[in-house]
Parts: sequence; C-alpha cells; structure tokens
Amino acid sequence: MGTAQEEDFYKQADGGVCAAQGFTANGIHCGLYPDPEKNDLGLIFSETECNAAAVYTTNKVKGAPILVTKKHLAQTGGRARAVVVNSRNANTCNADGEEKAQKMCELAAAALEIAPEQVLVASTGVIGQPLPIEPIAEHIRLLAEGLDAGNHAAAARAIMTTDTFPKETAVCFPLGGKNCTIGGMAKGSGMIHPNMATTLNFITTDAALSAEMLQKALSEIVKVTYNCLSIDGDTSTNDMVSLMANGLAGNDEITGEGSDYEIFKQGLYLVMMRLTRMLAKDGEGASKLLECTCKGAPDKETAIIVAKSVIRSPLLKCAMFGEDANWGRILCAIGYADAEFDIGRVSVELASAKGAIAVCRNGSGVAFSEEKAKEILGEDEIFIRIDLHQGDADATAWGCDLTYDYVKINGDYRS
Amino acid sequence: MGTAQEEDFYKQADGGVCAAQGFTANGIHCGLYPDPEKNDLGLIFSETECNAAAVYTTNKVKGAPILVTKKHLAQTGGRARAVVVNSRNANTCNADGEEKAQKMCELAAAALEIAPEQVLVASTGVIGQPLPIEPIAEHIRLLAEGLDAGNHAAAARAIMTTDTFPKETAVCFPLGGKNCTIGGMAKGSGMIHPNMATTLNFITTDAALSAEMLQKALSEIVKVTYNCLSIDGDTSTNDMVSLMANGLAGNDEITGEGSDYEIFKQGLYLVMMRLTRMLAKDGEGASKLLECTCKGAPDKETAIIVAKSVIRSPLLKCAMFGEDANWGRILCAIGYADAEFDIGRVSVELASAKGAIAVCRNGSGVAFSEEKAKEILGEDEIFIRIDLHQGDADATAWGCDLTYDYVKINGDYRS
Repeated sequence: MGTAQEEDFYKQADGGVCAAQGFTANGIHCGLYPDPEKNDLGLIFSETECNAAAVYTTNKVKGAPILVTKKHLAQTGGRARAVVVNSRNANTCNADGEEKAQKMCELAAAALEIAPEQVLVASTGVIGQPLPIEPIAEHIRLLAEGLDAGNHAAAARAIMTTDTFPKETAVCFPLGGKNCTIGGMAKGSGMIHPNMATTLNFITTDAALSAEMLQKALSEIVKVTYNCLSIDGDTSTNDMVSLMANGLAGNDEITGEGSDYEIFKQGLYLVMMRLTRMLAKDGEGASKLLECTCKGAPDKETAIIVAKSVIRSPLLKCAMFGEDANWGRILCAIGYADAEFDIGRVSVELASAKGAIAVCRNGSGVAFSEEKAKEILGEDEIFIRIDLHQGDADATAWGCDLTYDYVKINGDYRS
Repeated sequence: MGTAQEEDFYKQADGGVCAAQGFTANGIHCGLYPDPEKNDLGLIFSETECNAAAVYTTNKVKGAPILVTKKHLAQTGGRARAVVVNSRNANTCNADGEEKAQKMCELAAAALEIAPEQVLVASTGVIGQPLPIEPIAEHIRLLAEGLDAGNHAAAARAIMTTDTFPKETAVCFPLGGKNCTIGGMAKGSGMIHPNMATTLNFITTDAALSAEMLQKALSEIVKVTYNCLSIDGDTSTNDMVSLMANGLAGNDEITGEGSDYEIFKQGLYLVMMRLTRMLAKDGEGASKLLECTCKGAPDKETAIIVAKSVIRSPLLKCAMFGEDANWGRILCAIGYADAEFDIGRVSVELASAKGAIAVCRNGSGVAFSEEKAKEILGEDEIFIRIDLHQGDADATAWGCDLTYDYVKINGDYRS
C-alpha cells in the first residue's frame, strides 16, 4: 500500500468523493430496485466548474450513457459540473438508450440550474431492458436538494449492484504550497438480472490542472490500476472512470509535466490503486484478494502482461481458493503470457501476513514446507511475487480467487 | 457433425488409433498411479515406418517430452514408428526431464527393436515432480508384447487423467481409388496433483502423404479444431498433437495440394473435430457442451476470434450452467473480441435439440419466450449461433459451462 515515506506525504482522508473542497453528493432510492432500502440514484456536484477527463470501456458494445458523456465532454471542451448515475439498469442495447441518457442529464441540469452538457451520466445493471425514466424524473429534485458533503457514502451506495460493501477513499497532500485532496468512489463486479461486471469510478479533486493534463494523468494511472484488475476476464459494456478537478485548492494550474504533475499523479495512483484493491477484494464470490507483482522485467509492458496473465488464470484462482501452493499453475500462466522473455530465469514467491516462501527458482520448482505454504495461503490477502530476473521494470495486478459463490452468483437464473 | 452428403462419403469407423491398417496399440498399469485399475502407460506402433507431423503447445514452459519429440522428428526428417506415453506425471520443470523422456524412447525402442529416434514421447499429469522411470522400465516389454489392433481402447485409457471417459474416433473414405482410414485418440482437461489441463492427441492414418503435406494438413486443421477449444483459457505446458501416416492404404502419395489433399484434410477435420467436441463435453466439471458458430464474418480470422471470445467468457459459461438465456453476456463477449467489425449488425440465436430462438438482432435484444429459452437450455448440447452479417467467413468454437464442480476439482488441495 505504499512506502512509509509516501504515507507521510500522502495522508489518508475521509469523505470519499466529497473529500476535496467544493464537492457535494447524494444518493437515494428512486424505485429502480424493488427494495426500498437500496439506493439506486446518485449525484455528484461541484460548486464551481471543473476540468474533466474520462476513460471508457474498450468493448464495441457501449452503454448509451457513455456515448452521451463523451458527447458532452466534446461539446464543453472537457468541462463539467456534475455526474448523475443510476444502478439496476445499464441502459445498454436499448433503441431509446441515448435519448434516455440525455434525458437524465437534462433532469439533473434543471434541478441543479446548470447546462445539460455540464452533466456526465453513467448507468450500471441489466442490459437490454428499457430504462424507466419516470422514477428518476420524480426524484431528481429530492436528490439535488439533499446534496451535501456529508452524503458521500449515500452516493457510494447508490452505485452498488452485487457489491457487498461501498468503496470510497481519499488522500490529501501538499501541491504547490497548497493542501490538495483527491477522493473517489467505485463500484465493482456486480450483477443483477442480465448484468455485467461493470466498473464505475468517479474521482474528484480540488487541485488545478488543465483538462489536457487531467486526461493524461487519468489515462496513465488507469493503465496501471483498473486495467490491471481482473475478476473474470470479461470486459463490461459500461465501464467508465471520470475525473473532475475544480481547482479550489488554489495551486498554480498544472499545464505541463514536471514535479507538480508527478506529485498529483502519485496521489491519483494511490486513490485508484486503493479502489482497485477494494474492487478485487469484492470480486463476485471472492474469498481472497490476490495481488501479483512482476519485477525484473525487460519493460513495463512485459511486467503488466505477465502479472495480468497470472491473476487471470482460472486454474490458479481455484488453487488459491483451495489454499494450495500449486506453483506449476503460476509458471504455466507466466509461460503463456504474450510477451518475450526467458522463462528459465523466473523465480516465484508466495506471501501473506503469515510470511513468504520461495516455490520456484530458475524456472524449476524448489522444495518448500507444505505446512508453511498452507499457513500463508490461509490468509485473505495473498501476494504472488514473480521476478523475471531480466530487467528493471515492474508492475502489479489485482484479482481474486474463483469460488463456488462466483458460479452461484452468475449461474442463478435472472428472475 | 457434418452434412448428410459428407456422412455418406466419410464413414464412421471403429478401432480408434488402430482403425487404420498396420497400427497396433496397448495400454497397461505400470504403477505411476497408485490405483492398479488405472492404466498409466500407453504405446502406439506402426508395422512400417510412417511420415509424421506434430504440433506443440505455445507455452514458453514446455514439457521435456515435447523437446525430445521435436528433436527426434528433426533427426529423422519427419519419420517415426511409435509413440510412448504416460499419464500421472507431466515430466515438466524437472532438471532431469529430458534425460528421462529420452530414456522412455530408448526403452520403447529396445522393446520394439527400432531406433530411439523413431519413437515420439508424451507425458501428462503432475508438474515439477521427478518422473519415476523404474515402473516404466519394468513394464515396457509387457506393454510391447501386448500390442494388438484390438487394444486401442486400453491405450486410450492409459492417457486419461481426470477425463471421465476415453476419447476415440475414426473415419474411412475413398482416396485415389483406395479405402483410407484416419483414427485418433485424445485426452482432455484433466488434473491430478499440481496438474495442467493438458490436451494430448494421437492421430494415425494409412493414407500416403509426404511429411511436408502431413504437417501442412495438421497445422491447418489444428487451427480450426483444437485451437478453437476452450475449457478455461489456460494453455498447458504439455499439449501435443501428432499425426503418423504409414501409407499402407496404397494411394498415390500426396505430395502437393489438389483434390486428394482436400479429401484427406476434410477426413482429418472430422476426426479432430469429433475429438474436440468430446474434449469440450468432458471439460472439468462440465455439465453442458457449448458449440458457438460465427458466420457472416469479413474473414476467417475474425470468425474464429469472435467464436472463441464467446466460448471463453466465464459469465456466459455460468449463465449456461444456470440455463439462463442471458444474451447480454454473449453480446458483451462479441463486443470485446479483438477484431474489427460493426457490432450494430450482429444477430444471435440460441439452439439445442429442443429448437432455436432469436435473442438479438442488429445488436439489440428481441422479445422471446423465456419458457421456450429455458426448455432449449435444459439440453446438454447448446448451440450459440452468431451472424455478423458482414461477410462470408465462418468458424466454430467449442467449450463447456462453468460449474461448481470445476471449482471443486481445481480448488481441492493436491494431496
């Protein structure tokens, strides 16, 4: 989770998506879910206009909200004031999807007295069923009236589907002589009904950055955080990460690379890495978080490919569920990773809070205590440490074990 | 399984790997498995020298037997007389692996009175544990003495690991005025101990083909059969397909492309496609065979990529286990397939022996009877039919559902 030095500089903060100055949020039940205890409509608002950036799913099937969000950011040149989001229905593969997504923005804009193109929109849930707009229209004013910096958790709950806990985090750190904050919330591998394991992530900051540098930072950090997360290898149609910066911290606007940009980027990494870990931990049916690091790689790309290949292997995921130090499966997944390196130099360690053991050196197995291995793998956070011994690059990927409950959750009939 | 016309021309035959003239086989228990009822050592033998071809795993971690088989085929210029194979131990990631694999060839060669380089070798089972050579040395003569065309099933059983049934098939057909036969046996997604879902396939034929054309045919057909099979997305270290042709059918040797080559290739396709279907049906924990066809693709490559993307999706595999017509997951997997096409023209049908229903047209859902869908998906062979509506190419991929038993088999502790 970072070095001691880093934790001194980047301090954990409360308040999630409202931790940064000038942001308020809210979440309510509007009626998309039958259960009145379940929030299904959320809103994030900035008291001043923000520079904004976003990254979207690479799936050819794209949810209608993504198309509308893209259009709005293009229209405003990367400026926004609010995010409106619903759960239970993904508003994807519907003939009237874009119209409804646009309508959500208009409803939010009217309640907030801003322009519709200043609103970003996201949806998660069932695919291919028309989104009922009435419950949203009827509750949007109530939602807007309840906007408060204290309501960040209600907003985080409004985006949950099969998530078992809300996901929020924030850090504050000095930037250009000012105190800056970055906060965020996320939802993970959830399903209802037809479902997708959609990942939605909303990040807010009071740092001042140009829209261009904001997009650059977000794209770079997504690559080493969310894109290194694998629950089951399926890529959703609705995945989206947005980043809004209102500049209220008062630092000199970051308009190019340099030390301020690097400081900001590291803060963003910490927020997104922590959310990524929460997403992995809450993977459908997961009983264990798996963190795989690959070091000694000839380049970053190779390190990422190897770490992701291991974290994605269903055989390894089952072995971790069974708490079995089945290193052959790790070596096998390293071996089929689509990158060039010498497999004969690879070493592998398994670790947890209970200690670490070497299981493979120079591509061959080494003797280890099965008893010790069992003790290590009995923990709920497992670290798989790979060293390719052929360079200086490293990367980390996150995932979870494959359990009976994954099959149960995803095999159960929709209705 | 082929058109009526095709079934008239290519007739199903008995005898598996011994269906073709001049081939004998045997399988015995030598003691690698503790259970004396379980065959663990097999042999295939041709009374005359064969032209031979092979295709191997692309995993960087390669079992020692693969290295020795490659070496032998290089030494002989693609000629061979026998295959020796064991189960229970993959002889992979062992310091003395190549030496042991070579020793297996020498033992078989001595018993058969042929040269060691005329023997191909394969192993499947646990990784990273030294292969005990003594049980093999002690039983190799008994194995060779029992060689008989009637013992094909004993050989097929000798390569089983967690396979629940032996896999054999054969076809005969006219070729250059002669009656030719192609037969084969395979083992699939098995595990013992550390394990790999190794696929081993041994094909024999009495047709006469040059080693070069044999390799060409094998490589082409592997691409559209075994390489379109996905049980869990893991690629084993020991996968191997070999093809031996002894020419005893008496046809004019096929030395180039043309109608005889095409006729042979289609026969080879039928044998390997049927074995592939058996492997899918017997996937670890599988309760259903899934067959996904993609037609209307701009090119073959795209059709293969799309069909494999769908067959590999864990979310879809769970839905099929749950007998849930969750077409959103199919469209999602089509959408993230790594190929260029217009998702807005895609249609999808679900089918089985109980009928067919359209679930998606022009990239959007269509209304269908959930009752009818449930009835269709209740069968144990499910067909997912995709039409991209943007070309003439097609492809088929095979897989199985993801069940509690997959997790159980692969999550259980090794010992």
